[in-house]
Order: sequence, then structure tokens, then C-alpha cells
Amino acid sequence: MDKIGINTVKRTEFVDITSKVEKIVKDSKIKDGLCVIFCPHTTAGLTINENADPSVKKDIIEHLEDLVPSGKNYLHSEGNSDAHIKSSLLGNSLNIIIEDGSLTLGTWQGIYFCEFDGPRERQVWIKIINNA
Amino acid sequence: MDKIGINTVKRTEFVDITSKVEKIVKDSKIKDGLCVIFCPHTTAGLTINENADPSVKKDIIEHLEDLVPSGKNYLHSEGNSDAHIKSSLLGNSLNIIIEDGSLTLGTWQGIYFCEFDGPRERQVWIKIINNA
Amino acid sequence: MDKIGINTVKRTEFVDITSKVEKIVKDSKIKDGLCVIFCPHTTAGLTINENADPSVKKDIIEHLEDLVPSGKNYLHSEGNSDAHIKSSLLGNSLNIIIEDGSLTLGTWQGIYFCEFDGPRERQVWIKIINNA
Repeated sequence: MDKIGINTVKRTEFVDITSKVEKIVKDSKIKDGLCVIFCPHTTAGLTINENADPSVKKDIIEHLEDLVPSGKNYLHSEGNSDAHIKSSLLGNSLNIIIEDGSLTLGTWQGIYFCEFDGPRERQVWIKIINNA
Repeated sequence: MDKIGINTVKRTEFVDITSKVEKIVKDSKIKDGLCVIFCPHTTAGLTINENADPSVKKDIIEHLEDLVPSGKNYLHSEGNSDAHIKSSLLGNSLNIIIEDGSLTLGTWQGIYFCEFDGPRERQVWIKIINNA
Repeated sequence: MDKIGINTVKRTEFVDITSKVEKIVKDSKIKDGLCVIFCPHTTAGLTINENADPSVKKDIIEHLEDLVPSGKNYLHSEGNSDAHIKSSLLGNSLNIIIEDGSLTLGTWQGIYFCEFDGPRERQVWIKIINNA
């Protein structure tokens, strides 16, 4: 598998990793298959959403904070339970179809690493399944 | 890959696509593998849930609206941020195991395309991974 | 595919299935590929989250109950609509990369079967996709 390193700079932040994933798919030379993206962290996640207006990701981040407030009195003593819950709500893996050697995303779709307990050094793992 | 076209008729609507996905799997003649279902839109999603009592999907739709109200004052100027957020909460891809040439779903499971910003012309993309 | 049987003992409960999934992967002798985990129930789900402090799973369970109260007056007459909604929020399948014959999880990651309408006899289905 391939790994993408990400240095997040805020506690909560969505980082667009689309071009890095596309490069890994191109470099694999695999024409037909599946690109699996996996987040190995429990206080971060992955999502696919709009790649055009940056206010969309701000709205998602702010609304997740409304739904799962960081300041609530949780049991877990590290003070980052909201990040664990947000991770489970968005999920930690994605599947994208590969055809003709390229990722097939919709027009407005970008791939985001979702940091919920940064800043930290993070990784995303990429596995290409060959269907040829 | 195969594509399913869907014309939604309401702003928010869950469309059962189970039989269309099953037909694609049958027609592929692949006996053993994985069916990946991908939604290429950022204001729609996919989920697997109960296929019997239609009140379940109504409860899911109404409760998602309680959690992510369409009328909240979001930043994104197109007025559909709730649809983007609902899309990220449910997710935009599904995996279903193929055995003996069939999708293996649980007894009460149906596959739903989840429209959150309709009515629109939509697509769902299907990729069959052959494990033989 | 392989099946894991789970007998849940409470209405809501997260059951760690990591070691059972790891054993299935080892026994498959497949060195390189993808492990797909599928929950065939509509009132349960699957998630990957922290495997160390058990208070994390308690926080997730309690906060999901805050977001989707079991006592709300839903349409569905079986009285378990909250469980269906929680199932769609967490999702019912997971992907984990297999390399060198092992599941590749992050240091703090465990795999959880999420019961939302127990106690019941449940199953989890495991499919190993061989990429060799």
C-alpha cells in the first residue's frame, strides 16, 4: 500500500487529498479496479464532498461541532471524545472506482482528510485493488 | 462500470435501487467478488436499511432533518448545505459481498439512493470486483 | 465468505470483533488484498474506533442516544426506529487493507459490532478479496 503524510495545523480541519490520491492511482498503472482509502486514526475520518466553494467544508465542520460539541462533559479523560464520535459518524474508509487508469469522481467531488483532534502528524493509507 | 439513472421527484427522498443493482450483478456473470456502489453527487448519499415498512425510511428522513435542518443559516450561498452535511453523514459508497453470483443482503435489507437536494437527474455507479 | 456469530446482551452495546476478524484473515492465507466486513442487520452497524479506554465506546453510545433518542415518537410501529437511524449513521460495512497476510489497523483501532436493538443473535459477514 501507499501512504500519504499529512501535517494538520488546527484542531479541526478538512484537508483536500484528491490530487495526491489521483497521483498514486496514475503511478500504479492499474487500469481497472478499486481505490480504497483508509484512515488509521481514531480521532480523524475521511469524506467525499464539494470541491468548489470552501464554505461547504466550513458548514460541515461547524455543524458537526453543533451536533457533537467539544466542550461537553464526556467520560473519556483525554478530552477528545467529540473527535472519536465525529470519526465514527463520518467513517474512516472510502471506496473509489478506477476506470481507464483514473479515479472516477463526480464533477464536484473532492476527497477530504477530516482532522478532529489536531494539530498532528497523520497518515492516510491507499490500497489499489486490481480487477484486470 | 455500470450506471443506474435516477430521476428524483422531491427535495428529500430515498429511492430503493436494490433490484437494479441485483440485475447488474446477475448480468455480470461474476460468481464471487464485491459489488461497490458509488454516488457521484455531493448532495445525495447511499444507505442500506429496512426494505419492509416504509415508515422506517420516513423516520430516517425526518430525523436527519431534525439533526441537520434545511432552514438553518449556513455559510454556503446555494442554500443546500444541509444536503452536503447529510451526504457526509450517510456516506456515498457501499460494499456488498457477491457469492454464488448473487448479492448477499440480510433478510430485511434494501439499498437506497438518498436524495437530499432534489428533484434532480442523478446517477449511481456500480463496479463489480471479480475475486475468482 | 466467513461468518462471525455474536450474541448481544444489552439493547445497545459495542462488541469488539477485532481478534475474530484477524483470525479469519490469517486462516485465509491471503497475503495481499482487502477485508470487507458486512453487517446484514438493519438495527445494528459497524465502526472502527479506540481499542484502549472503554470509556470511548461509552461516550459514543451515549452521545448517539442524545442525537437519536430511543424514546422519541417515531412513525415505525416496532419502536426501534432509533436503532435503524443509528445504523445508517454509522454504516454497515468496513474495508480494511490486508498486507503481508495481516489486517493493517492503526495502533489504537479496534473493530466494533454496534448493537442498537438487542439483545439478539447477530452475524457479521467477512469477505477476503485476493489482490495477488
